[in-house]
Amino acid sequence: MDKYDLIVIGTGPAGEKAAVKAAYFGHKVAIIEKQAVFGGAGVNTGTLPSKTLKETSLYLSGKYDKGLYGVDRDIEGDTSVDTFMFRKNWIIKTESEEVRKNLVRHGVDIYHGTASFVDANTVNVKGPKEVSLKGTYIIIATGSYPFHPPNIPFDNARIHDSDTILNITRYPQSLAVLGAGVIGCEYATIFSTSGTKVFLINRNDHILPFIDKEVVGNLLDSMQKDQIDLLFNKSIAKIESPASEKEMVKVELESGEIIHVDMFLYAAGRNGDTRGLNLDKIGIEVSKREAITVNENYQTSVPNIYAVGDVIGFPALASTGMDQGRVAVAHIFQTKDIEEIAPILPYGIYTVPEISTAGISEEEAKEQKLSFCTGIAYHKDMPRGKIMGAQRGLLKLVFTRDDLIIHGVHIIGHLATELIHHGVGLIEEKKTLLDVIGKVYNYPTLHDLYKYAAYDGLGNLSGHKVK
Amino acid sequence: MDKYDLIVIGTGPAGEKAAVKAAYFGHKVAIIEKQAVFGGAGVNTGTLPSKTLKETSLYLSGKYDKGLYGVDRDIEGDTSVDTFMFRKNWIIKTESEEVRKNLVRHGVDIYHGTASFVDANTVNVKGPKEVSLKGTYIIIATGSYPFHPPNIPFDNARIHDSDTILNITRYPQSLAVLGAGVIGCEYATIFSTSGTKVFLINRNDHILPFIDKEVVGNLLDSMQKDQIDLLFNKSIAKIESPASEKEMVKVELESGEIIHVDMFLYAAGRNGDTRGLNLDKIGIEVSKREAITVNENYQTSVPNIYAVGDVIGFPALASTGMDQGRVAVAHIFQTKDIEEIAPILPYGIYTVPEISTAGISEEEAKEQKLSFCTGIAYHKDMPRGKIMGAQRGLLKLVFTRDDLIIHGVHIIGHLATELIHHGVGLIEEKKTLLDVIGKVYNYPTLHDLYKYAAYDGLGNLSGHKVK
Repeated sequence: MDKYDLIVIGTGPAGEKAAVKAAYFGHKVAIIEKQAVFGGAGVNTGTLPSKTLKETSLYLSGKYDKGLYGVDRDIEGDTSVDTFMFRKNWIIKTESEEVRKNLVRHGVDIYHGTASFVDANTVNVKGPKEVSLKGTYIIIATGSYPFHPPNIPFDNARIHDSDTILNITRYPQSLAVLGAGVIGCEYATIFSTSGTKVFLINRNDHILPFIDKEVVGNLLDSMQKDQIDLLFNKSIAKIESPASEKEMVKVELESGEIIHVDMFLYAAGRNGDTRGLNLDKIGIEVSKREAITVNENYQTSVPNIYAVGDVIGFPALASTGMDQGRVAVAHIFQTKDIEEIAPILPYGIYTVPEISTAGISEEEAKEQKLSFCTGIAYHKDMPRGKIMGAQRGLLKLVFTRDDLIIHGVHIIGHLATELIHHGVGLIEEKKTLLDVIGKVYNYPTLHDLYKYAAYDGLGNLSGHKVK
Repeated sequence: MDKYDLIVIGTGPAGEKAAVKAAYFGHKVAIIEKQAVFGGAGVNTGTLPSKTLKETSLYLSGKYDKGLYGVDRDIEGDTSVDTFMFRKNWIIKTESEEVRKNLVRHGVDIYHGTASFVDANTVNVKGPKEVSLKGTYIIIATGSYPFHPPNIPFDNARIHDSDTILNITRYPQSLAVLGAGVIGCEYATIFSTSGTKVFLINRNDHILPFIDKEVVGNLLDSMQKDQIDLLFNKSIAKIESPASEKEMVKVELESGEIIHVDMFLYAAGRNGDTRGLNLDKIGIEVSKREAITVNENYQTSVPNIYAVGDVIGFPALASTGMDQGRVAVAHIFQTKDIEEIAPILPYGIYTVPEISTAGISEEEAKEQKLSFCTGIAYHKDMPRGKIMGAQRGLLKLVFTRDDLIIHGVHIIGHLATELIHHGVGLIEEKKTLLDVIGKVYNYPTLHDLYKYAAYDGLGNLSGHKVK
């Protein structure tokens, strides 16, 4: 039986980075992948595909450019699903191959098949060839799968989950999305941007609870401007999918309302993918959502077994998964290069417009009873924003009144997921509004938002507005 | 005679920010503008117009998107100069009005006319109404003007300087640009992107000497791919502009070569605009290029008179001008909010592709005899770069070998002028490659370039490549 210092289960962002890092530090590593393609949800069904579709929908619709140049882009009515999917498929193919090459380059042994635990140090792999592997340490990075409640008649044609929606062979005229979490909000705005009439159904009305409320409010405003129908505090009673594609899918809400849509997307939850791992056999318990519980080093209740990425639940982002993988390896092999995940994490949500935040929200500042204040700047007021025709978007700083230290940065709009990294640095280094005002930003750039928001914050403090 | 705590001459980025800041701190401020419009070169003839044209040319050409989505943008052959200028003119109009409103909102008194010194505390303004103003302090922020050598027959129709090129009424089929400085490189790539055949003529072959050579090399490669003819180590002997627009402008080089082009742009220098100020009367001397000499507080040889922005010469960027204005005011009124300009400045060059750098280049590291190494990542290898179809571009880190501290960041390609700000923070805070590797970046974003370049740097150090 082959023996390894480390066995990693899953080649998504968390698993790949863990395996490669351990190999880089000279350890003997195996990785197990049950799919024919590498990269897990990050490459194949989640992060990259949806982000590519977002860019494609923005490009094909010309949404951000309308009227901007006195001439409009004309795509000649070509909105076939092939066009829509062209770029996505290319990205998946090349990135999956990148992951494979990266593993090979680092000398990681690759096994194809389904993993299950025999004991805490032995993993059985059922693939084209069945093998058992011994591992001193094991990292579970199996990701998540879309939960399928019994009352939704998934058919992969018109009633989709967040995996199958990527394989549609025709373009929906209208779409009902159930669940206004990250995935639901992303697809609702992407399809709406592409011209699909979208209904967004959610059980309650406080969506994206970990995001600053003003930013969420801005997203909701934007959705309404784009004529997305928000059906909040609603649940699904029944869905009927007719035999003929010419008829609409009938979605009946518990309130009695009925909507008729071309397609339906269930985006109300993904579960940790622990299916078939035999976790009970080795004494690892999972939560209701099948998430594995870990400590701050990503160690499970079995000390030589770790878990990283979507399989441990929130925040379930590719970026955090990768770093969890690296931190777990640092802990296992005492590599001393990074001891813990960065304390201030950026969150990126690839809606249209996109959202990114770091540090504490206004609501968290209130809960912590801080004496705080905020400063805001709007994309549309920045010279760079005018050049790019940004109509929407804002950047908000949350800072404490006495020392002017910045504790939170919240952005919605053009380049939010890029712009946040400067804010992460400001929070980590305990910078103040005056530090920001003293900085030189290239002109014109959207980073000007930071300086304008800092001036706005000073103005709010003194009751005296200044630019 | 009206008396002021501060008189500012010029409403460009440097003058505006100085006036507004002094007014915000409660001082009585006058500002003098000789043009009908506000904002100086930053708004009217330099920064914003050329950056807007850059975006327009990228949009209209679809340069960055070709083939990306299996469908190409079609602008229906509309490349009239009106289309090209539409957005630029809108930006100028709205931003000039923004400057005026900002001055009014802060209670700055505005005088229209040409300023000249009567003595070190008295400025005469010749406008619709002639007035003299007394000022305890005076800030000169008059900017620069394009130098006109006698052998160039400027006619504002086919033979242009960097101001008049913005007022062309038809689109050049071909263009010779003299001078491969920031302005020359920007316009050469902007017009080339828009489909104009461009010749770039330069006296020597070491262009943009303050930028890392590898980045400059990448720009030159890009220019050559775009079929810009680089005529380096060449000077102009003679230019003949024919009477008829049907004939080409004949540009004769000292080497004997002759090129025939539709239009000619002189971009080989701008001088400090001290014309008519009567500086000799109050004992302020100017250099050969009419730049005013100042100390680290932007104070001239006359202690109550300061000078900021393009009128003091290099780097002549809007961003640095604004901060010079703020620093001068901080020094004059002891506002204590910022004592000096930020030590690490970002430089932004809005070529296609754009460039931005901070800290020391590889060449400077050599000069300083540092034991250094570099790490590079390419836009085309980043998942975000693939999504946007970035073919060109790189980010380079310069770091010292012993402590891995990052001393320079050099970027060319998509979003360079935005991405640099994270790098400025890394340099200021003396962060190491390991700090960068320990950071979490949103995925996928172009900020991943930092992490990949850091890994590349570690690999280069150890002779052991890793991703």
